Amino acid sequence: MYIIADWRRTHYSEQVIPEMDGQEVILMGWVHSIRALGKLAFIILRDREGLIQMVVPKQKVDEETFELAKKLGKEDVITIRGKVVANEKAPKGFEVIPMEIRILNKADAPLPLDPSEKVPAEIDTRLDRRFLDIRRPKIQAIFKIRSEMLKSIRKTFSEEGFIEVNTPKLVASATEGGTELFPISYFEKEAFLGQSPQLYKQMMMAGGFDKVFEIAQIFRAEEHNTRRHLNEAISIDTEMSFVNEKDAMAMLEKVVHNCYTDIEYNRPSEIETLELNFEIPEKTFPKVTYSEAVDVAVSKGVEIEWGEDLSRAAEKAIGDEMGGLYFITEWPTQTRPFYTLPDENDNKICKAFDLMYKELEISSGAQRIHKYDSLVQNIAKRGMNPDSFETYLEAFRYGMPPHAGWGLGADRFTMILTNQENIRECVLFPRDRQRLTP
Amino acid sequence: MYIIADWRRTHYSEQVIPEMDGQEVILMGWVHSIRALGKLAFIILRDREGLIQMVVPKQKVDEETFELAKKLGKEDVITIRGKVVANEKAPKGFEVIPMEIRILNKADAPLPLDPSEKVPAEIDTRLDRRFLDIRRPKIQAIFKIRSEMLKSIRKTFSEEGFIEVNTPKLVASATEGGTELFPISYFEKEAFLGQSPQLYKQMMMAGGFDKVFEIAQIFRAEEHNTRRHLNEAISIDTEMSFVNEKDAMAMLEKVVHNCYTDIEYNRPSEIETLELNFEIPEKTFPKVTYSEAVDVAVSKGVEIEWGEDLSRAAEKAIGDEMGGLYFITEWPTQTRPFYTLPDENDNKICKAFDLMYKELEISSGAQRIHKYDSLVQNIAKRGMNPDSFETYLEAFRYGMPPHAGWGLGADRFTMILTNQENIRECVLFPRDRQRLTP
Repeated sequence: MYIIADWRRTHYSEQVIPEMDGQEVILMGWVHSIRALGKLAFIILRDREGLIQMVVPKQKVDEETFELAKKLGKEDVITIRGKVVANEKAPKGFEVIPMEIRILNKADAPLPLDPSEKVPAEIDTRLDRRFLDIRRPKIQAIFKIRSEMLKSIRKTFSEEGFIEVNTPKLVASATEGGTELFPISYFEKEAFLGQSPQLYKQMMMAGGFDKVFEIAQIFRAEEHNTRRHLNEAISIDTEMSFVNEKDAMAMLEKVVHNCYTDIEYNRPSEIETLELNFEIPEKTFPKVTYSEAVDVAVSKGVEIEWGEDLSRAAEKAIGDEMGGLYFITEWPTQTRPFYTLPDENDNKICKAFDLMYKELEISSGAQRIHKYDSLVQNIAKRGMNPDSFETYLEAFRYGMPPHAGWGLGADRFTMILTNQENIRECVLFPRDRQRLTP
Repeated sequence: MYIIADWRRTHYSEQVIPEMDGQEVILMGWVHSIRALGKLAFIILRDREGLIQMVVPKQKVDEETFELAKKLGKEDVITIRGKVVANEKAPKGFEVIPMEIRILNKADAPLPLDPSEKVPAEIDTRLDRRFLDIRRPKIQAIFKIRSEMLKSIRKTFSEEGFIEVNTPKLVASATEGGTELFPISYFEKEAFLGQSPQLYKQMMMAGGFDKVFEIAQIFRAEEHNTRRHLNEAISIDTEMSFVNEKDAMAMLEKVVHNCYTDIEYNRPSEIETLELNFEIPEKTFPKVTYSEAVDVAVSKGVEIEWGEDLSRAAEKAIGDEMGGLYFITEWPTQTRPFYTLPDENDNKICKAFDLMYKELEISSGAQRIHKYDSLVQNIAKRGMNPDSFETYLEAFRYGMPPHAGWGLGADRFTMILTNQENIRECVLFPRDRQRLTP
């Protein structure tokens, strides 16, 4: 008991088919359900790829196996060596009759959360017992699609000649002069958790890396408690040289479009499990300027002045009008960070963009200022001290190329791909102001 | 001046060949060197892929272009529209004659660090100006190989059916009961930076994810200052269910072997730039037990008792004997973390392994304890309080499968792949006790 020894899984549940009639298989997984009648036991085994039915007829198996089968409990971990028997009356056209069953671990009863339940518990209960929650196929499907998304994004970056970089998350000062930072005791010094790799990826451009990407944690000490913010998030960040913001937007369109294509191709059963109405977007997305977007909001009765950041109400009004994926471009300079390049003809607007999905912002980007003097002026104009950006600013003095880039929120993008309303559904162990465990 | 406008790079330097004689190209990059004679200027342009020579003959270009060329300074950022002219006497069999040159950004002089210098400065000077340091082809080559390594590793995981996961780096308590943690102020609470995803990847096994991997930051508040430790590192972590430690080792062999193969295939010019003696290892690596390794150390005069962790002196002695990549297996249980599975016949040794390269440990792994009672006992036996592992331990009560896994240090593995002696050479912005910037 409890020993895997030399047994290894020969098939996942979904790989067994009626055509394997007579073949011996070794399966491993959890007891999803067990029903023992007088001379017959039915076990449904669950593994990562699905469910499979075992039939244990008392006459056809040895006594030990039959007794063991009857004693199984929900969520026990078992392995079965058995024979595939084609049977037209069985749900999938076959059954597996075990020759030997081994229990690898018992599950206590009752379960604090039952993975076979149709109606899930409240999200907080589920997150407290996330290891049980993620056994449900609908939850696993979200994370399989998320994994596929990350794979697809890296593939696109790689095909386009981007280099993957790792930049530090322990930093000495704020990226954007903001206050929403988590402080750390770093030996004798104070340090902070990085809220964005922005300054580092720009320094990579000065370093001649040409095109880089990084997929990593960002940390924001924001106090709001919404369904679309977390304090620890995964950001897909990129920066590219010798291009403008339109090239950066084209790259973002390619990355996003390819994600949909790859997920549709590689994860059809997860799309089905989640009952997604999965539509691949066009290769280019609609674009509206900030001014046009504000007009839309105003026309729908939202109170907003040109120059303000978009309120939730404005985002909702604009999202209703635009639907799906679209860009908002030509933002007021004052709404964007100091490193954003203003338009050469009208410095009240700048070369920034947001990628939206309906009312949700999923990506922000821009062409950046690459001239040292403009950048120093801009930092000062915003009431920040250029001295505190010394190592960053130095990179602009010795040959900084024109560059542009964006950050795409991996958790939010997963929400859209999997049609979830709460970002916590798309993160295995979410971190918000209240939640720091498990 | 300073505007990229509608110009886009048509070729990287390495893509231009003599057969393109007569063709127009647009190149973008840095002035690596400039030599202006009376009626002739030579510019060597550097981009991410290499160097390319421009010849600017006064008779063949307009006056403005010639004057501009003469005024160029080292590390200015320029773009050139020019014509390829085959010339057997030129270094690569061709030259580019510019029709138009645009300056995209000037570089101040003198440079605090000159990327064209053959003899590099001290490492601390270089790290202070990392953006200039990484312009040197030898430095870029390290990070191109690092990027290729990460790509190869993910490819192997993907081919073997592993799901990529993201686990939190903000945690409420220590992974291994250790004290080497960075504390954070997390709103009203105290939190820590994750020193390992260990407990999370094990919970994923309880969650039925079967095989997972994560490549992410780990943070260790260790005070030592060596050439092989940093306080922020990238760890390649994996965990797999229904297998033992030997399967985990086989997966590690596959991951490492494929890295060498992919780098040799995809990064030949970086291997050349770094003058690496790049040998692809066998598909399986030699294995010695801890006891055998201790005997080797003792035979070489190292003082060590069975049961102690390997000292630096012992690692050196063993590394000298073994060379290259090899495993040390069957470690004394007391030297390994509480979650390591002891041998069923002799609980003084356990199912743990280290992957070494000569004297450097690059990976640690083991089969884990999957039985709740054993785990609780083990935590208590080590003087820790099982209550502080509550959410982790709960995952073992409701169906935890047998599982094994490992962590591979991305920074250390890069050291080996690129033949570097100091881990700081393999990390863009290293973090140690003294260094928190840039």
